[in-house]
Amino acid sequence: MIMNVGVYGLGRFGYFWSKVLAQKNIVKVYSRNQSRETPENTIRVSEDELCSCDIIFLCVAISAVEKVLEQIKDKIGDNTIIADTCSVKMYPVEQMKKILKPGTPILATHPMFGPDSARKGVQGLPIVLSNIRLTDEQFSYWDEHFQSYGMDIYKMTPEEHDREAAYTQGVTHFIGRVLSDLELKSSGIGTAGYNDLLDIITQTCNDPWQLFMDLQRYNPYTKDMRDNLAKSLKKVMNSLEESIDK
Amino acid sequence: MIMNVGVYGLGRFGYFWSKVLAQKNIVKVYSRNQSRETPENTIRVSEDELCSCDIIFLCVAISAVEKVLEQIKDKIGDNTIIADTCSVKMYPVEQMKKILKPGTPILATHPMFGPDSARKGVQGLPIVLSNIRLTDEQFSYWDEHFQSYGMDIYKMTPEEHDREAAYTQGVTHFIGRVLSDLELKSSGIGTAGYNDLLDIITQTCNDPWQLFMDLQRYNPYTKDMRDNLAKSLKKVMNSLEESIDK
Repeated sequence: MIMNVGVYGLGRFGYFWSKVLAQKNIVKVYSRNQSRETPENTIRVSEDELCSCDIIFLCVAISAVEKVLEQIKDKIGDNTIIADTCSVKMYPVEQMKKILKPGTPILATHPMFGPDSARKGVQGLPIVLSNIRLTDEQFSYWDEHFQSYGMDIYKMTPEEHDREAAYTQGVTHFIGRVLSDLELKSSGIGTAGYNDLLDIITQTCNDPWQLFMDLQRYNPYTKDMRDNLAKSLKKVMNSLEESIDK
Repeated sequence: MIMNVGVYGLGRFGYFWSKVLAQKNIVKVYSRNQSRETPENTIRVSEDELCSCDIIFLCVAISAVEKVLEQIKDKIGDNTIIADTCSVKMYPVEQMKKILKPGTPILATHPMFGPDSARKGVQGLPIVLSNIRLTDEQFSYWDEHFQSYGMDIYKMTPEEHDREAAYTQGVTHFIGRVLSDLELKSSGIGTAGYNDLLDIITQTCNDPWQLFMDLQRYNPYTKDMRDNLAKSLKKVMNSLEESIDK
């Protein structure tokens, strides 16, 4: 069964995700931004035409989800699944449940990779799935579909996702931004650990600043993470300064 | 030519370094701590006997260098080379030049790896060499010797080393300690960047806390690094908090 898959938004992630999905589906893409390039093997369509796909993946900024849902809610087909791909889960799920018609099937996904980390393919990379409003059959289909790419499927609730991601993503992006601000450069005498640090800059700072902000703003558990991180930073800095002053 | 190589100190690094050197040399080891294990293929000797080796690698804490040099300076053989292995270079070189007899040949080394990063061998890993008081012939011998292990040789002055290491090592160890204090755990939904962060904890926190402190205390360029790091941290934290409050 070949599905008609829609991708809404052609930013860095949408562009990447369209190409992944086009390996096994007919992929139609839409962006309100005319100047965005159409990914190879995909069909550029209007917003109206996108709405008749079997499933639509929203690849827009977290902060744009509400507006996009309002815009398409009355245009989407009766059996069209709406799937978000946001890096936080509680907020977009809440919006989809609130804004979409009661009959619209909803899938929450978080592909935990992007064009940088999936340079060598998506095999073995983690994707989070949360069945919000699909039949068991629909959910199994997409579960197996992502498995067929070799992705590692993690089924969890939006709450479970956000609690864990506050640390796994939140700390990583935070450190990446700090190191980038420090303008660290590659060095012949860099240790393995230092080279890992440089990798983190690449893997986080190619993402838009907007994503970094949204990750923090829309995940209720990141406040806790930031407080703990600030505490640990201060603790280590203080033990250093004390030791040096001795 | 098989050399008699002495290793002074059997902490985590000395133990590791003895085994590396024992692949190609007769290695004699000494530790004032009787309970330290003798590495395989090495000969445990007294401090006096160690002092007659062709070269002695000091594998002691940076803060212990001065005391050890005072203790051995009058016992070491006429042609015995003293080589330090400290993670900072200006300070131990200054001590060696000051304390050792004018005729004692001096080599400064910094093997930029340890038992964790060299788990799969030392091939391709960086070592810094600085000729302080060797003849060209002596220096070439040790240069080629380390090359024969496949190590990447970086020849630089103690100043050049410390300026660069303030960032490459200093930032890495600092971040490693902060993340360890945060008690980050491995996660199925960890991104590639997150797994790099966890690697950094392993690669820095297996080293003694003493090394972390000494790196900062004895490298004059780390003050600058700490100030810049604190500035970047504050900057990122502030832009986050501002954005979230909006």
